Amino acid sequence: MALIVQKYGGTSLGTPERIIAVAEKVMATRAKGHDVIVVVSAMSGETNRLSAFAHKVSNTPKERELDVLLSTGEQVTISLLSMALEDRGCPARSYTGAQVHILTNSAHTKARILEIDDQHLHTDLAQGLVLVIAGFQGIDVHKNITTLGRGGSDTTAVALAAALKADECQIYTDVDGVYTTDPRVVPTARRLDKICFEEMLEMASLGSKVLQIRAVEFASKYNVPLRVLSSFKEGKGTLIAAEEPMMEKVLISGIAFNRDEAKLTLLGVPDQPGIAYQILGHIADANIEVDMIIQNIGADDLTDFTFTVHRNDYKKALDILHHTATDLGVREIRGNDRIAKISLVGVGMRSHAGVASTMFKALADDGINILMISTSEIKISVVVDEKYLELGVRILHAAFNLEE
Amino acid sequence: MALIVQKYGGTSLGTPERIIAVAEKVMATRAKGHDVIVVVSAMSGETNRLSAFAHKVSNTPKERELDVLLSTGEQVTISLLSMALEDRGCPARSYTGAQVHILTNSAHTKARILEIDDQHLHTDLAQGLVLVIAGFQGIDVHKNITTLGRGGSDTTAVALAAALKADECQIYTDVDGVYTTDPRVVPTARRLDKICFEEMLEMASLGSKVLQIRAVEFASKYNVPLRVLSSFKEGKGTLIAAEEPMMEKVLISGIAFNRDEAKLTLLGVPDQPGIAYQILGHIADANIEVDMIIQNIGADDLTDFTFTVHRNDYKKALDILHHTATDLGVREIRGNDRIAKISLVGVGMRSHAGVASTMFKALADDGINILMISTSEIKISVVVDEKYLELGVRILHAAFNLEE
Repeated sequence: MALIVQKYGGTSLGTPERIIAVAEKVMATRAKGHDVIVVVSAMSGETNRLSAFAHKVSNTPKERELDVLLSTGEQVTISLLSMALEDRGCPARSYTGAQVHILTNSAHTKARILEIDDQHLHTDLAQGLVLVIAGFQGIDVHKNITTLGRGGSDTTAVALAAALKADECQIYTDVDGVYTTDPRVVPTARRLDKICFEEMLEMASLGSKVLQIRAVEFASKYNVPLRVLSSFKEGKGTLIAAEEPMMEKVLISGIAFNRDEAKLTLLGVPDQPGIAYQILGHIADANIEVDMIIQNIGADDLTDFTFTVHRNDYKKALDILHHTATDLGVREIRGNDRIAKISLVGVGMRSHAGVASTMFKALADDGINILMISTSEIKISVVVDEKYLELGVRILHAAFNLEE
Repeated sequence: MALIVQKYGGTSLGTPERIIAVAEKVMATRAKGHDVIVVVSAMSGETNRLSAFAHKVSNTPKERELDVLLSTGEQVTISLLSMALEDRGCPARSYTGAQVHILTNSAHTKARILEIDDQHLHTDLAQGLVLVIAGFQGIDVHKNITTLGRGGSDTTAVALAAALKADECQIYTDVDGVYTTDPRVVPTARRLDKICFEEMLEMASLGSKVLQIRAVEFASKYNVPLRVLSSFKEGKGTLIAAEEPMMEKVLISGIAFNRDEAKLTLLGVPDQPGIAYQILGHIADANIEVDMIIQNIGADDLTDFTFTVHRNDYKKALDILHHTATDLGVREIRGNDRIAKISLVGVGMRSHAGVASTMFKALADDGINILMISTSEIKISVVVDEKYLELGVRILHAAFNLEE
């Protein structure tokens, strides 16, 4: 008998019929003798419906109140799923983030989980209950309702799996696993049976959208085996787990890409200690996540400094730079929010040379200009003009034989 | 400077535009220098929308989960109203029932308020915040979400006004006050400027639907002046307050009536001590509220016992009687769920004789048969066939000159 945490996304819960189907899936898992904790998102469309309301009553909805509003979405689904389970003879109990005491920091709309009070959950499980827990939400120390940001339900599921030492955390979604790349861009993209945490982290953070990066981080940190499965199609999905020697034989696991990028460049920055902090400190204070950071050595003790942010944060970041640039003695600020990032990911890179040059050659052969390059042990990312995104991904998928 | 608790119902909050209008009303009160606490219901239609979902996923939705579901309705409105206020420069903060710690018993879907933790509310008010609090909901000692039943938001408002010793509790609704009777039945019905708690208690409990009875009970117990006002129309509304000598001059304040009645009669009940308890104990255990109770002396140490319940509880009550009747040695059980109740209410009755006979004569003159009679110090109720309800109310409104 194992303890399984299952997470169902908004599409899987989009109609009463689908909620009933989820109840049946949960009961099937339970019929195998497993204890089950279910984490649910809001019904698809609900978050947008509520946000639209917020914007009709206010120009800039206060984030604390947005969290109060949006957290109702999962509260609806936990109750409906629990009713559906109870009505079919499966004892169940719903819990909101506040009731489970998912303690987060106070960063409204993008809070981070600090602690989960799992004591009473163990008691409930021992009584044979299926626990249905609201994803995406928590409370801070002052009992304010917080939300974890888009995709936060995955994080809730993995955090619960970690806290309760679950045997597997299953993420049910509308795709049947992790693919070598997005099949909408490359029709020959292939579902992976297994991928290691590190690779998935790179895939997720770079825009594969199957799983939220924080969910994978949690899973990796607490070694919770994670499985991505389809709610609508039978199948084994993709297991995301700790790296095994076997895996190293694969050179490249997949190609991630991200369309929603923007880059900001400071030209002629005084090349002195602490300059990166001075530039990025204000950006971080505004809760803007910085992705790639590149600093080139320039002439005359000056340097050029480029970084990328999510496209939504572009204007805000640019404003901040304009306010701080004079103090720093920067010559010029440039920005471009029409860029995209393509990344090769694979633990096999560690022991194989030549991946980067194969990548650069393949792109150059088709006339795609590389604007930025950034590398880590298991990935190589390039930034290109947004219009080359699909072409670039297809070229690389073929160049590294990922369809086979 | 006074402390005003304002409660807005679902119709007053039914659209984004109306929520903004409520925000403006709140700000207008605040502009007069008052501290304001706002209690809100769910947007009109929301409770029905959510209930429909519940019944689509389950045949008999579990009451604990229904409360989790339905309580999202007010959570949506508290956040939207707070956003609307903040956006217009009025500092505001929303609180759910759980956050305010409105402690109730565990009777899901019809819980009763036990205690309110008002400490931090005082702190917030001192900081100049408008507090926007979810009506209708609370938590029990186990932190389960509870709801107070239909109209429970009024109760929340008055309970808060009592706990915080507010100067007035204003109930904004879609009618502009308390009328001598329902103007839809009697077009000449007149708005009352003032009515005392006792009269309002009889009016509310007998189906005037303007205010929930528990709200008036709370208000009376803690002597909180209550004012019923329209959200859509300027006006002074009706003040409900402690009885003053002045009021006694009025013989009859109004005519209440209730269509949703059902009566159950036990014929040939052994006339022995404790029999009423034996009959009604099981009814009470099933959380069914009993209204009128009449016991007639019969022949041969047998008695006839009749009581009325809400029509929704009729079948359940009948089932219970059939299960217990044999133990009690009852000869026959009769029921009728097509009855209605009409009541004259007025503190003036205390010092005036002849009210009952005027009432009975007026009804008899138009051929309306009285099925049951029940009296108290300030009211006389008769049960009649449902089809005579409107006619009976009109006859009595005229007979007691209430239109003047």
